[in-house]
Amino acid sequence: MDHSHHMGMSYMDSNSTMQPSHHHPTTSASHSHGGGDSSMMMMPMTFYFGFKNVELLFSGLVINTAGEMAGAFVAVFLLAMFYEGLKIARESLLRKSQVSIRYNSMPVPGPNGTILMETHKTVGQQMLSFPHLLQTVLHIIQVVISYFLMLIFMTYNGYLCIAVAAGAGTGYFLFSWKKAVVVDITEHCH
Amino acid sequence: MDHSHHMGMSYMDSNSTMQPSHHHPTTSASHSHGGGDSSMMMMPMTFYFGFKNVELLFSGLVINTAGEMAGAFVAVFLLAMFYEGLKIARESLLRKSQVSIRYNSMPVPGPNGTILMETHKTVGQQMLSFPHLLQTVLHIIQVVISYFLMLIFMTYNGYLCIAVAAGAGTGYFLFSWKKAVVVDITEHCH
Amino acid sequence: MDHSHHMGMSYMDSNSTMQPSHHHPTTSASHSHGGGDSSMMMMPMTFYFGFKNVELLFSGLVINTAGEMAGAFVAVFLLAMFYEGLKIARESLLRKSQVSIRYNSMPVPGPNGTILMETHKTVGQQMLSFPHLLQTVLHIIQVVISYFLMLIFMTYNGYLCIAVAAGAGTGYFLFSWKKAVVVDITEHCH
Repeated sequence: MDHSHHMGMSYMDSNSTMQPSHHHPTTSASHSHGGGDSSMMMMPMTFYFGFKNVELLFSGLVINTAGEMAGAFVAVFLLAMFYEGLKIARESLLRKSQVSIRYNSMPVPGPNGTILMETHKTVGQQMLSFPHLLQTVLHIIQVVISYFLMLIFMTYNGYLCIAVAAGAGTGYFLFSWKKAVVVDITEHCH
Repeated sequence: MDHSHHMGMSYMDSNSTMQPSHHHPTTSASHSHGGGDSSMMMMPMTFYFGFKNVELLFSGLVINTAGEMAGAFVAVFLLAMFYEGLKIARESLLRKSQVSIRYNSMPVPGPNGTILMETHKTVGQQMLSFPHLLQTVLHIIQVVISYFLMLIFMTYNGYLCIAVAAGAGTGYFLFSWKKAVVVDITEHCH
Repeated sequence: MDHSHHMGMSYMDSNSTMQPSHHHPTTSASHSHGGGDSSMMMMPMTFYFGFKNVELLFSGLVINTAGEMAGAFVAVFLLAMFYEGLKIARESLLRKSQVSIRYNSMPVPGPNGTILMETHKTVGQQMLSFPHLLQTVLHIIQVVISYFLMLIFMTYNGYLCIAVAAGAGTGYFLFSWKKAVVVDITEHCH
């Protein structure tokens, strides 16, 4: 009987148990991914709630029990919270380390016909400075974490997606309230 | 007959019709995903234009006709537009609900040798306040929508990707023009 | 021998070479994706380092040699760098093209009991203006690039993920140092 047409699709019938197809790391170039050790799995394309065979970013990290899923939930929740905190920390770090670089003034029309003297104080950092280097490293960490959270959400696993969203909300609640829009009000001393 | 090597790959030849392999929800732990009902499908890894068997986030939501694709296009377009509007709405909500928390002043060198008295007015919200709670809820909604748009783009379906990009552009055009960088100019009343 | 259970999973054994299953573009509606030409591949679900059969966004774009991977690395690196630069360029463009739209003043309690006259100068753009139209087009480009970088990171290919993160860091380092938080200090001319 010709299975070929449907085999790839129907193998997931209810009594099959999906075994992760772990590769034996081979160095031969003939290996499907050029020496890499990666397990191939059919990827769920819709949200589901399950805890069997859920791979999390790294090939060794496979969730198979409810307990492991609970642990992953907490880890993902904390990662999402950390991500929100990192964003806020970077903002306040940026404000603290800013030095004023340039002033330029220009007259602008103010309310009821008055003339306002608008002075633009451009603040920033020196490119080759420790604060900017630190911000750059933190930026890379922030980018990588955001992609990790994306890849986790991409598993379509309901528990993990809730962990990402709940962590983001909790992190925002805890860290973003003072948002600290620092508003400079400066005027010449008379 | 040698199935093993190419089975997983060749089943998608031109005259096969890809049937979504719907699971019969079983509670038995033996089910591949621990009871969850999720359909497994090979995932396109490059952009394509088609409207057959396109699953959209939830297992019941499968696009199969041009009409259904058109409907999905409009829905995704509106979701992307709503996302842009939500971002702007949150910003203006944040500004309105901000209360000034702290003032601190310090002398800073101004242009042409003058001394400027710089007063930092830190604005923000109380953590345990309704405005901040509202912002937190909106933040979670914003995060979830951004991931949904990501998952939609991840289908590699050309129509849906265009809907996401076009919705984002239209939303930006309609909501972001007044960007409203509110600049505080405050001075002591003489 | 019972292939069915593991067929979809075990075809990736070490000596198999994964051939991209390219479709012959057919117009018949029976085609799995409604006429589209997209290749189906099992998607790695964990990070790996390899350069065989790595598809990059478009069906013609398949990496198969170390040299091609090096080329893709540079291209992805530059795209991620361009993305950071685009964000900063848009910010400064926005500041330059902003016109003041509205003033409104209100008394607010200042430090040590003084009364401050707070004037909010709302700046922005006219909706139907060239600067806003330009910002909208740039916004769409920025959104599409961000999704492309996401899809690249989603290949779980170690080299490409490093290229995305490194490009983002380099771009941030080169373009974001002057961050230019323009602070307006305006006061009435006496």
